[in-house]
Amino acid sequence: MKKFALLLSCLLLAGTAFSQSELTLKTRSYRQQHERQLLDEFRGLLAIPNVVYDTAGIQKTAGYIADMLKRRGIQPQLLDGRTKGVPPAVYGEVMVPGATKTVVFYAHYDGQPVNPNQWAEGLKPFEPALYSGRLDAGGQPVSLPKPGEPINPDWRIYARSSSDDKAGVFTILAAYDALLKMNVKPTANLKFFFEGEEEAGSTHLNEILERHKDKLKSDLWIICDGPVHQTGRKQVQFGVRGDINVELKVYASKRPLHSGHYGNWAPNPAMMLARLLASMKDDDGNVLIKGFYDDVTPLTELEKQALTRIPAIDERLRQELGFGKAEGGGKSLAELLMRPSLNINGLSSANVGKLAANVIPTSATATLDLRLVLGNDARRQVQKVIDHVVAQGYYVTQKESITDEERAKYPRIARITAESGYNAQRTPMDLPIAQTVVKAVQSTVKDNIVLQPSLGGSLPLYLFEQILKTPTITVPVANHDNNQHAENENLRLQNLWDGLETYVALMRL
Amino acid sequence: MKKFALLLSCLLLAGTAFSQSELTLKTRSYRQQHERQLLDEFRGLLAIPNVVYDTAGIQKTAGYIADMLKRRGIQPQLLDGRTKGVPPAVYGEVMVPGATKTVVFYAHYDGQPVNPNQWAEGLKPFEPALYSGRLDAGGQPVSLPKPGEPINPDWRIYARSSSDDKAGVFTILAAYDALLKMNVKPTANLKFFFEGEEEAGSTHLNEILERHKDKLKSDLWIICDGPVHQTGRKQVQFGVRGDINVELKVYASKRPLHSGHYGNWAPNPAMMLARLLASMKDDDGNVLIKGFYDDVTPLTELEKQALTRIPAIDERLRQELGFGKAEGGGKSLAELLMRPSLNINGLSSANVGKLAANVIPTSATATLDLRLVLGNDARRQVQKVIDHVVAQGYYVTQKESITDEERAKYPRIARITAESGYNAQRTPMDLPIAQTVVKAVQSTVKDNIVLQPSLGGSLPLYLFEQILKTPTITVPVANHDNNQHAENENLRLQNLWDGLETYVALMRL
Repeated sequence: MKKFALLLSCLLLAGTAFSQSELTLKTRSYRQQHERQLLDEFRGLLAIPNVVYDTAGIQKTAGYIADMLKRRGIQPQLLDGRTKGVPPAVYGEVMVPGATKTVVFYAHYDGQPVNPNQWAEGLKPFEPALYSGRLDAGGQPVSLPKPGEPINPDWRIYARSSSDDKAGVFTILAAYDALLKMNVKPTANLKFFFEGEEEAGSTHLNEILERHKDKLKSDLWIICDGPVHQTGRKQVQFGVRGDINVELKVYASKRPLHSGHYGNWAPNPAMMLARLLASMKDDDGNVLIKGFYDDVTPLTELEKQALTRIPAIDERLRQELGFGKAEGGGKSLAELLMRPSLNINGLSSANVGKLAANVIPTSATATLDLRLVLGNDARRQVQKVIDHVVAQGYYVTQKESITDEERAKYPRIARITAESGYNAQRTPMDLPIAQTVVKAVQSTVKDNIVLQPSLGGSLPLYLFEQILKTPTITVPVANHDNNQHAENENLRLQNLWDGLETYVALMRL
Repeated sequence: MKKFALLLSCLLLAGTAFSQSELTLKTRSYRQQHERQLLDEFRGLLAIPNVVYDTAGIQKTAGYIADMLKRRGIQPQLLDGRTKGVPPAVYGEVMVPGATKTVVFYAHYDGQPVNPNQWAEGLKPFEPALYSGRLDAGGQPVSLPKPGEPINPDWRIYARSSSDDKAGVFTILAAYDALLKMNVKPTANLKFFFEGEEEAGSTHLNEILERHKDKLKSDLWIICDGPVHQTGRKQVQFGVRGDINVELKVYASKRPLHSGHYGNWAPNPAMMLARLLASMKDDDGNVLIKGFYDDVTPLTELEKQALTRIPAIDERLRQELGFGKAEGGGKSLAELLMRPSLNINGLSSANVGKLAANVIPTSATATLDLRLVLGNDARRQVQKVIDHVVAQGYYVTQKESITDEERAKYPRIARITAESGYNAQRTPMDLPIAQTVVKAVQSTVKDNIVLQPSLGGSLPLYLFEQILKTPTITVPVANHDNNQHAENENLRLQNLWDGLETYVALMRL
């Protein structure tokens, strides 16, 4: 206990109010003189469609990033794995004579799918637009200021990936550019690695890491993804949850039926799905699937204590988000994010609203995502879901089309398919290099930064540990209210400016 | 009991194998000589978009039907109620000197909404297409035969409303045309009434009936809508269930949230909806909403006995539809259709499949339809659903947008809105005019026709009883496997030919 307390104080020492470093002030002044140029390059990046499944868009985005590297005097390389025709990682490196450390900076350039119809009127996912504030807080469109004119840092820029994660790509490259322009030398060898398949579960990242093991040798990966703390404080995260998506489809009649002529008799797949989903959680949001919380590696004392120091924002956040009662039976958000979770991403069966018709649908689908913590295994977690569905009397298959024989034989039929997900990862908080990172980030601000044992979100960081034997630390930049993964994704400009100062400091570790 | 048994035998007498009448054979020969002309006029009708909410399409459809009346020497009239700008009924009449009876023939010309993306490749809802059989049984496109060439009666014509209910409109007008061409006089005064708002719940039908009470005076309304019995036998129905649609929307956070960062803590509206829906029915499909089966008027002895004579088709139908187990704990389809029901028409929350993203959605919606039997009241039935949702801890509103105060005050918020539905109606099976109808339909076929106390589906027939004090009897023509209300709606041509013979007989009551 004593040892942990001591280590924690060391870490937290970094978290007590330092004065901001000269480098930070210098970076700020540089940024203030170049805001319009910075914004223009970022807007160019945002204007390129980057949905992870859109091959042409992904190629174009990779090309734009390669050009950004070239403009900074870095020779870009596209790193493939064994599998061809999948998004490459865009890579570049800056070797610093005399450097004793090598740090890889990671962000991903692909984005989540978009349904343009769900975006607010006037917004298009790939036409970046400036607003005076959050749309749902009365933000209005603003036009781009002339070069040299001041830009209000509370403005937001709306576009898919403005936060997740082109903000990461841009922050890293803008920070390096700032060093060049300010004539400040990095103190470590810098490597830049921009993934293009993160939102599809990083299916081929393992191949790329395996194939380029030597090139990617380093002491640390710094991951620029996700939002800073909800208080607006800067944050350092020592791990991530794992993630795997599961699609659950329930089948009933082969053809849609008139709900009047067959309504009490033919089974309704939407109701079957509702019952199945309802069986998975209790009223407090606890997952009822057998063994769901097994395999969990307990938190270390250091992690437990760090959790208690995270500013409590639950009540403020609940009000801001506008819902009455959180799940979890009174546990804090910070605690709950350290558990495996089951979330319904979407539901669909026939139509609702104006398109609704009086039918019994033929099938009903839910997309789930399972977040994993240290100790969980993605495949094993999916198997628990499958076992649960089987235990509710279902025949479970992976096939899309169900044969007449199967239909005759099984009263309840479900299709469960899983994307290739990945496991959680946590870097021990007491590693010396972890403390160095914490100090660097703290050097850029007066407020105590927030130290999180694990992000609630996911990145395939276990791969770096497994394949490269290298620790990872995540240092996010985006605002927490960024609508990441959804319609109306946005980035608050001050977060970009703050991120620039953070990453300049991280290049002088 | 004796009295009931006697009446039933009278009714069933009509149901014993008669030889087909001369009139039927004459009609058949007429049809065989005019198949291509009949089909052309029907195809013209099907080609006009008639989605009930599409004002332009509805007007055009009404115009086409008015022209059909004119071609038959009948002066068409467009009947409005008080409310302007809603679909009119298309009306025409043929007064027969010396006739002692007046019969109104009803069908509706509007159709259910269409989602063209859900239709099979190559099919468009308003481009009627001939196929050699059901699509899902290997049916292939066939081209229109030349005039005079035989048409295979097992062919299907695919289009929205090919069955529901342009088949009704066309059958009635084709039958009258056949009488004209065959030089056979109707024995009763004939009135034709084609409604244009049935699929929207016949919201203004009461106004039209009130306003044109005198014009619509008659001894009987014959309703041409719905499918014949699943055995293919002709059918006479003495009533319908009522129907009311309810939309249920559950709200959670104001903005979509990243499922990783908030996944165990922020409530998920899709899960809330699933739990709510699951609470409404037990595993056998019995509705658990308090009082749901109250208010039901018991069946008469005659109706009970008629139910037992309906051919058992459950097992064959279950196999054909490809599901393993029916709801209802072993009760027959015929019995179950005499109960009030609750059906989920559709579900929606965020996205599934390729568009799915790792988010916690902001809301989740289900469209329900409630079928009502004699004794139920539509508003009262909806109130039971509202009371149930309230009993699950929800604050229920009708407003689309929820205020911050409401969000702060209520942990669970649902919006429940209902369209204007209508109640059930049943005509006593022992009315003399009912027996006359049964005899006329039976005169056209050798097989016993099926007598149903009530259709499972709905039509606003209670209005005729309430406003006009006139009984209704439904005589359907469509095939049972017609995908009515859904994608790939179709009509088997033999059903059109059979219907023609039925309706010629019904015009000689």
